[in-house]
Amino acid sequence: MEGIGAKRWNFGTSNELLVRSSSLGIRDYLTTLNSCLNGDDSRPVVPLGHGDPSPFPSFCTDQAAVEAICDAVRSTKFNNYSSASGVPVARKAVAEYLSRDLSYEISANDVHLTAGCFQAIEILITALATPGANILLPRPTYPMYDSRASLSHLEVRYFDLLPEIGWDVDLDAVEALADDKTVALVLINPCNPCGNVFSRQHLQKIAETAYKLGILVVADEVYDHFTFGDDKPFVSMAEFAEIVPVIVLGAISKRWFVPGWRLGWMVTLDPHSILKDYGFVQSLTNVLNVSTDPATFIQGAIPDIIGNTKEEFFSSKLEMVRKCAEICYEEITKIPCITCPCKPEGSMFTMVKLNLSLLEDISDDLDFCTKLAKEESVIILPGRAVGLMNWLRLTFAVELELLVDGLSRLKNFAQRHSKKQP
Amino acid sequence: MEGIGAKRWNFGTSNELLVRSSSLGIRDYLTTLNSCLNGDDSRPVVPLGHGDPSPFPSFCTDQAAVEAICDAVRSTKFNNYSSASGVPVARKAVAEYLSRDLSYEISANDVHLTAGCFQAIEILITALATPGANILLPRPTYPMYDSRASLSHLEVRYFDLLPEIGWDVDLDAVEALADDKTVALVLINPCNPCGNVFSRQHLQKIAETAYKLGILVVADEVYDHFTFGDDKPFVSMAEFAEIVPVIVLGAISKRWFVPGWRLGWMVTLDPHSILKDYGFVQSLTNVLNVSTDPATFIQGAIPDIIGNTKEEFFSSKLEMVRKCAEICYEEITKIPCITCPCKPEGSMFTMVKLNLSLLEDISDDLDFCTKLAKEESVIILPGRAVGLMNWLRLTFAVELELLVDGLSRLKNFAQRHSKKQP
Repeated sequence: MEGIGAKRWNFGTSNELLVRSSSLGIRDYLTTLNSCLNGDDSRPVVPLGHGDPSPFPSFCTDQAAVEAICDAVRSTKFNNYSSASGVPVARKAVAEYLSRDLSYEISANDVHLTAGCFQAIEILITALATPGANILLPRPTYPMYDSRASLSHLEVRYFDLLPEIGWDVDLDAVEALADDKTVALVLINPCNPCGNVFSRQHLQKIAETAYKLGILVVADEVYDHFTFGDDKPFVSMAEFAEIVPVIVLGAISKRWFVPGWRLGWMVTLDPHSILKDYGFVQSLTNVLNVSTDPATFIQGAIPDIIGNTKEEFFSSKLEMVRKCAEICYEEITKIPCITCPCKPEGSMFTMVKLNLSLLEDISDDLDFCTKLAKEESVIILPGRAVGLMNWLRLTFAVELELLVDGLSRLKNFAQRHSKKQP
Repeated sequence: MEGIGAKRWNFGTSNELLVRSSSLGIRDYLTTLNSCLNGDDSRPVVPLGHGDPSPFPSFCTDQAAVEAICDAVRSTKFNNYSSASGVPVARKAVAEYLSRDLSYEISANDVHLTAGCFQAIEILITALATPGANILLPRPTYPMYDSRASLSHLEVRYFDLLPEIGWDVDLDAVEALADDKTVALVLINPCNPCGNVFSRQHLQKIAETAYKLGILVVADEVYDHFTFGDDKPFVSMAEFAEIVPVIVLGAISKRWFVPGWRLGWMVTLDPHSILKDYGFVQSLTNVLNVSTDPATFIQGAIPDIIGNTKEEFFSSKLEMVRKCAEICYEEITKIPCITCPCKPEGSMFTMVKLNLSLLEDISDDLDFCTKLAKEESVIILPGRAVGLMNWLRLTFAVELELLVDGLSRLKNFAQRHSKKQP
């Protein structure tokens, strides 16, 4: 057995698919940026690169949700394997919860529970990836869709969200991109990364366009209820299921500030039985059958998590997020090299544009973010990670004091790297 | 928008890959068998088709594990997103736990936490599926491997486990099957579905064969510690990592009787840095980066779950399983049309062979299981689900009283369907 190091092993083929798939991901960029941090900087790191306010005191989850988990695990009724679509009481509770804001009732049979919205995307993309098929994704995007499509050999085509009209969908582009192998269009509303909320009128147009093209709409509504614009209430794409088949994705991650609990859902809204008759519901079931499940006792806790969390918890947290969004927008308008085209009205993010011509020694968005991490211990995601070069994606959902500190450091950084006036 | 039902939709292409992938699965067979149950039968259903003793009073998990979960979720330290390979304290705890029974120390960096062993298989198979590659699986098998390989376009080749030599691996077949596109061999030890435990000597031979072929060994040790044979202690394939790179899969699911908690691991044992140098560790990281994670607070509970569960809990439960295995074996030997080639010494299962020539109106294993479900409300998995036609896979890990009842109904069923003596 000597010379083991010199032997030729068969598993040496580099997996190009995986390299591409993972390098598209947010995690990859954040790992790189975090490795640039200056260990000698005694200031706290300001993490504006990803949306997870859960570690901050102001965004601690509700005690009722915590106790629901303890009750469920202590009941010993939920230690067993889950069924593929989830525990019946939990599916029913989610169906009722989502129906509250709709003009009709969702059936528990149409709710499939997943290990976070993340896994809903994994499963959905796997089911959509028939040979030769393509999918329409927004640009800028949430790159998990791209990554999973790449892994599943599903071709991706991008339509633009247009900052000049409040990040609405370029519907002409959608029509031009689609062909008879296009299976779905993905819309994230409230929008990650742009921070806009789509109007009822625009959602209806998207639904009508999808109908015309013969494709289903994947409505990623994980930021459902995260709206704080004055005149832009959230409307679910589920309202347009009479026009076109809709699959709504969601989770408790954002509204309860518990992304680590990994409880999401995928809901088929199919009043004309199109998804069912075309075999797509069966395809989803097939993938669910060979995929892991959310922890059973977390599912078991869902009725109490939903039932026992007071409205006051949600309203106070949302008010806090709104305040953060306001301050973020105000402070950014004071930084000359950065432009925010639309004041954020939903989700936890905003997209801002870099004006490189005003900067002295910054070559692009990645260079900007790398130097910012190094010099100011502030993490911001380069726009390229979500499909827009020389833009930046910021989250404002962090502890207010830290946000103010981070924005001030960002301003100092921008000033320091600005071209000197002649 | 009239006539929506008559419209042609693009997502109509049936996904053959998914149909094949899911129809290979145990869940699919169990769903079918459960739908055959006679609702008028007032006797309890005896679920011998899948290995999940957690709902039974005798196999209730340890209170210390339950309290560890409550403490972790109440700490509010683990509501956030996990890093891709898991929370550091949890990785460290698993590394120490696994090292207890080894002749060397596992590093926490080599431990990647997954949402159950199920997800470890998903991730591993995805990483192994380079274009043109193939993998060697045991027959009979745990069909999740086949299903995920099929989804990932990874070719599967089967080597036999031989009942006449205690379900040892047919090593000549392994050598004959492998070529330079073979990347790995999977071994499940203690064995699901056969119930055998591989000897140290045989494991070493497997490792040497894999070395010779230039392939890595995937050691699915989810039934680690589930051994009750008199002279067959469990030996981890990790002991042979000096010979060949090994990836060990495991979970808390079985030993703590909490499959629904979805906490597993994938450990790379790579003393000669082969997996790393060949880029395979990076491939695993890439897949982890774009996959969902086990719930963060369950990870956070792991140090206490491991640290606070008393040895007495494990020994008393194992004694219970041993007793169930004994009774199962004894009762089965009394049924003429069923033969158990090897007394179970580990895992929760045994494979038994059907002698159809002794039966009057039973055409095959599926027919046997379907009629058994219908007439006796006993669920047993047809052998075809694990790759052996006209065999059966039984679990003995259910409440003892229910097991005895189920075996008695099985005996009655077999008698009733036996050919009459001339």
